[in-house]
Amino acid sequence: MNAYSESRPEFDFIDWIKKQATSRPEVKLGIGDDAAILLQQPDREWVTAIDVITEGVHFTSETPPALIGRKALAINLSDIAAMAAEPVAVFLGIVLPKSRGRAYAEQLYAGIFEIASEYNVTIAGGDTNSWSGPLVLNVTVMGTVEQGKAILRSGAKAGDWIFVTGPLGGSLASGRHLTFEPKIREAKILAQNFRITSMLDISDGLASDARHLALQSGVGIVIDSQSLPINADVNPELPKAERIRHAMSDGEDFELLLTASPEEGERLLSEGILLGLNVTKIGECTEEVGLKLKFSDKLTDWPRGGWEHEV
Amino acid sequence: MNAYSESRPEFDFIDWIKKQATSRPEVKLGIGDDAAILLQQPDREWVTAIDVITEGVHFTSETPPALIGRKALAINLSDIAAMAAEPVAVFLGIVLPKSRGRAYAEQLYAGIFEIASEYNVTIAGGDTNSWSGPLVLNVTVMGTVEQGKAILRSGAKAGDWIFVTGPLGGSLASGRHLTFEPKIREAKILAQNFRITSMLDISDGLASDARHLALQSGVGIVIDSQSLPINADVNPELPKAERIRHAMSDGEDFELLLTASPEEGERLLSEGILLGLNVTKIGECTEEVGLKLKFSDKLTDWPRGGWEHEV
Repeated sequence: MNAYSESRPEFDFIDWIKKQATSRPEVKLGIGDDAAILLQQPDREWVTAIDVITEGVHFTSETPPALIGRKALAINLSDIAAMAAEPVAVFLGIVLPKSRGRAYAEQLYAGIFEIASEYNVTIAGGDTNSWSGPLVLNVTVMGTVEQGKAILRSGAKAGDWIFVTGPLGGSLASGRHLTFEPKIREAKILAQNFRITSMLDISDGLASDARHLALQSGVGIVIDSQSLPINADVNPELPKAERIRHAMSDGEDFELLLTASPEEGERLLSEGILLGLNVTKIGECTEEVGLKLKFSDKLTDWPRGGWEHEV
Repeated sequence: MNAYSESRPEFDFIDWIKKQATSRPEVKLGIGDDAAILLQQPDREWVTAIDVITEGVHFTSETPPALIGRKALAINLSDIAAMAAEPVAVFLGIVLPKSRGRAYAEQLYAGIFEIASEYNVTIAGGDTNSWSGPLVLNVTVMGTVEQGKAILRSGAKAGDWIFVTGPLGGSLASGRHLTFEPKIREAKILAQNFRITSMLDISDGLASDARHLALQSGVGIVIDSQSLPINADVNPELPKAERIRHAMSDGEDFELLLTASPEEGERLLSEGILLGLNVTKIGECTEEVGLKLKFSDKLTDWPRGGWEHEV
């Protein structure tokens, strides 16, 4: 099939998509052939991220299609940010419900084009199908990073401080999961100015993602509930423990979770704000493995099934 | 999310997939981080192809899952072959029907792993979801090609001869669309030994794909029905015109369609067989645009809706 093919030719999308897509010099050949060709760039390497979102799981049939398209690309841009890379090229695998017609599909694509333009990425290929089932979007994003400069999940050391780039919780309930800005700018500032030892984006929820980082770095993590920035989307009238549970578990915040040595961490806290960052220290990495929460001066294991604090 | 994430943790697939995947040196960082990192290789460039297949369109709920997995990767390998590139890394976006359970999913992946191993490609990332809908597979394959040596659809010239790498027709009806071998080996031999001016793989059907080639090269195409190799899967008892219609329109043959100058074409016909190729000359490129079929010594336009020859 094609770098951009469509199995149902009644939607003559390819030309329309071609016209909308901005181009970048790193994409030597984009939409229209069997595959796209990416330019060889001296001293840079390619990174590739992929995410699938499906109706009924990541959005509903009531979600405005432009926001669905936006989200499908945004979550992948967030992955590219988490590597401290620059996003370049997007490949769209889309399965459209036949019943919704062309206007729906155009709005979906319009949402994709808008965020693609905002972050200066090229639609370099794809495959659009239609069927009798619900909507599925599979997005692959390729980016570039200076050779050897990608920030991995595996570099945290015991003693490192842990930071987040913004407040957590309430993303799904508030609809923020559809409109968030991927932290491309923040990741670039972080990588250019500080020695970040590990980084990932918070998609599953702080607790789960902190566990991923801990596992891959071979460290433990203690999070201090006192310092956790809680998003305004979490009801302020809830009991404190309940608000913390939201910040730890809700997920789809797409803030960055990162680590740095205490010395770099001090500098990050003092200089970060001048560079336009809003980082908060939320805990530390430990020798002893596992994920712990400090709450009311007590250190408790964060259970895999989620926290059930007696309020 | 992750270079390999799963939204439903009841399937603990990531570790299992990691264990199955062969590794290649071009993949500097594979499954397990926010994105994969691809190695910068001197004098080579990356190509990326993407294809989606869905239940009820490209396979049925009765198709053995191992064959579905195989096909999802094979059609992408076919795209990489059509660029004359070498496949390297695979990214899997899979949405599993919850109702089918783990054994079904494992068979699906086993089919993917088997062909991945056969063609020596690495599973470098992905995203597995499950839902209440039917099965969807989105595969992205990355390959490498010597800088500037990818064979595009756009290079055919008027006067060039047109070839196919094997017989056409009957793929869907016979089930061959699930078991075909992507023409990686053939593409490599072609690119290394002959000056091929354009190439693509036959997925939509010879007529449609010849039109893609003609359009992108700015030429016309005349196909000689006498020389068309018709697959044994097409019922030999059908009238000749009907058999030709199958070869022209059935699709999913995944043979390569390619062009070369008459001089190179002569050499390809005489030397190709010694190199293990089974190419057949099926027509020529013309100045006058459009797709024509030569049948019973008459030249007729091939209609977009398909050919209705009065038998």
